[in-house]
Amino acid sequence: MKHHLLPVSPTNIHWGYFSKKVAPALTLKSGDRATIETLTHHANDDYERMIANDPGAESVFHWTKEHKSVVRRGAGPTEGPFVRGSGEGLGVHLLTGPVAIENAEPGDILEVRILDVRPRPSCNACHAGKCFGSNAAASWGFHYHDLIEEPKPREVITIFELDTSGEPYAKAVYNYIWTPQTDPDGIVHPTIDYPGVRVDHTLVRKRENILPNVRVPARLHFGTMGLAPSESDFVSSIPPGYTGGNIDDWRVGKGARMYYPVAVSGAFFSVGDPHAAQGDSELGGTAIETSLTGDFEFILHKNRDLGGTVLEGLTHPMLETDQQWSMYGFTFPNYLAELGKDAQTDIVNHSSLDKAMRDAFRKLRRFLMTVHKMSEDEAIALMSVAADFGVTQVVDANWGVHGSIRKNVFRCT
Amino acid sequence: MKHHLLPVSPTNIHWGYFSKKVAPALTLKSGDRATIETLTHHANDDYERMIANDPGAESVFHWTKEHKSVVRRGAGPTEGPFVRGSGEGLGVHLLTGPVAIENAEPGDILEVRILDVRPRPSCNACHAGKCFGSNAAASWGFHYHDLIEEPKPREVITIFELDTSGEPYAKAVYNYIWTPQTDPDGIVHPTIDYPGVRVDHTLVRKRENILPNVRVPARLHFGTMGLAPSESDFVSSIPPGYTGGNIDDWRVGKGARMYYPVAVSGAFFSVGDPHAAQGDSELGGTAIETSLTGDFEFILHKNRDLGGTVLEGLTHPMLETDQQWSMYGFTFPNYLAELGKDAQTDIVNHSSLDKAMRDAFRKLRRFLMTVHKMSEDEAIALMSVAADFGVTQVVDANWGVHGSIRKNVFRCT
Repeated sequence: MKHHLLPVSPTNIHWGYFSKKVAPALTLKSGDRATIETLTHHANDDYERMIANDPGAESVFHWTKEHKSVVRRGAGPTEGPFVRGSGEGLGVHLLTGPVAIENAEPGDILEVRILDVRPRPSCNACHAGKCFGSNAAASWGFHYHDLIEEPKPREVITIFELDTSGEPYAKAVYNYIWTPQTDPDGIVHPTIDYPGVRVDHTLVRKRENILPNVRVPARLHFGTMGLAPSESDFVSSIPPGYTGGNIDDWRVGKGARMYYPVAVSGAFFSVGDPHAAQGDSELGGTAIETSLTGDFEFILHKNRDLGGTVLEGLTHPMLETDQQWSMYGFTFPNYLAELGKDAQTDIVNHSSLDKAMRDAFRKLRRFLMTVHKMSEDEAIALMSVAADFGVTQVVDANWGVHGSIRKNVFRCT
Repeated sequence: MKHHLLPVSPTNIHWGYFSKKVAPALTLKSGDRATIETLTHHANDDYERMIANDPGAESVFHWTKEHKSVVRRGAGPTEGPFVRGSGEGLGVHLLTGPVAIENAEPGDILEVRILDVRPRPSCNACHAGKCFGSNAAASWGFHYHDLIEEPKPREVITIFELDTSGEPYAKAVYNYIWTPQTDPDGIVHPTIDYPGVRVDHTLVRKRENILPNVRVPARLHFGTMGLAPSESDFVSSIPPGYTGGNIDDWRVGKGARMYYPVAVSGAFFSVGDPHAAQGDSELGGTAIETSLTGDFEFILHKNRDLGGTVLEGLTHPMLETDQQWSMYGFTFPNYLAELGKDAQTDIVNHSSLDKAMRDAFRKLRRFLMTVHKMSEDEAIALMSVAADFGVTQVVDANWGVHGSIRKNVFRCT
């Protein structure tokens, strides 16, 4: 077993997409471990707190008129003229990787264990040792066209500080309404439509003393984690799918084991979208977006060895924690295949919790029937009396419902 | 403070509906307590285990060609000829009550504290001291038109036994596929379409040794609990609404406090649909339906006193537990008013989790803004990072999503 280190840098990250075409940042064997740094793509909401003097973050976010260190941001066109910028922001998450797994082939399952998760402290001397995150109540939020206070609509950034002295929790520091921001290439961003645009704090009005009596218990986790799909060379990081991706379940933190179907040779694992805390639904469009570093272990389960294990017949992402198993249902189980060539832009027109609930039901039924050898009648009775279905997210185009069954249900008597 | 006792009997229950027109079974003052027995309407799925020799249950379920002790079952017509029977099964739950609260008027809020919940043991000498329940994977279940095994479709009854020797849990005893059952009036019930029809066990094939390695942790609670709406004289007990009713949240158990808007003079509280365990979604149509007895405390909050309290502006059912607050969202917040005169039959054509999510979001936002004096931007940021939205049920026509916020979020620092 080897323990690898994968720091953030322009060559170790890709921005806004999963891809089978990107050269691996790291190649490892089943059983290996890796410490992987991840950056929040919202760090530029407060450059001073989340980027300044951090060599890794500065190297990735660097963007002047002369030089943009990571040009492509998103799975969209990279030939101008651009509406929003290279990649067009069709996908927004900073992802570290890909990590190639030796010998991984389509049909295999990659298990990823999260051994530890740590916040990334500010490197700015003014905020030394402190950790910060940003929540964007954004145009893609569930609330956006349903606001009651003026001005309508509006996007709002709230900056949080993470206190890790005891049980970690987050406190709001200030918020501001997004105002049009001009990027170094001269493109104006009237809304949060392209990732990594530095917010000019002279153009926004900060409101302090917000949420004064609130502290948000931390749930450190990775919102986006998964493998490269086979269907397209560049796949937007926003809609989750059959190889995982932007699942946005706060349970994907320390101690979690995620299982992903391998779709391409080498698996091509990437991770990012780190979160300090999020609720089930991610209502406003984002969590507390905070740079994190994780320790991971990778175990490749070959297709020929899956029979008779909990992974038999698995065709979608699945979570195991000490307490439970969760199956991830989506509006479309595989929107790339189901919606065809315009899938990545069309999916946003089809978002549905009702369909995600249907998918989660079918996946949990399959798990109980295949893995636990239940009849369909046993599986449905058990789901009705003991399985909990929750709203994973209503903001990632391919909306999600998770179906969970507690492990103590299976204790023999 | 008085402590009242409300046992089950044909005069202390009403079957399948809420009603402002039923004479109160009990009238009490704010601050009073009551021990209230409730019966599961599924007891006749196994008469021997859940009714035989139990005087209260026998008196309510009694139905021969000569005498039917509770004639009306449901909010439907009571003049024949009947398709299914008197009340037409438009609403199915056996509800104990109504309990009238002195001085309660529309605009007030009734708080109901559940002090304790106990299962009702079998009175049959063969099963003395044991407690049983029934799960019906029924025609109104989410799975029903999406079955994979034959015969399709089918309804399945699973009988569970509750073990209360330690941490209570339920074990499956046997199951059977529903076969057409003929009631004492000669009406054939090809599906579970009318409550309280005794299943003739010579007409079904019992399958033993089911779910052999499964034990379901108990979550004793009341599926249906609430007040009489004002809109109609008889309101089906199936769709939940603004005065509560069939919310089917397993958190409504011991220690819970429910708050209901009063819609009619006297409030007219009823409770039933007792459950030994249920998962979020109640997927197959029912929980482990088990007769229970509860100890309740009733506190009337007059409209004039609500300002500045957590109840200010409350127009829907709300749950408080030691850990959290939950707001109940539905496809329609008040389907009776919104769908008009055919609401009770029409609601089943409109079921939607997406709409229920919308309603839950709006209700939780209102709570945070009104009670916690947050700006809309503070409320939305907090919901996104700390509120959990879950699928309450997808089987009660007016589908439900609950939005919950943990109390420890509000701890001052």
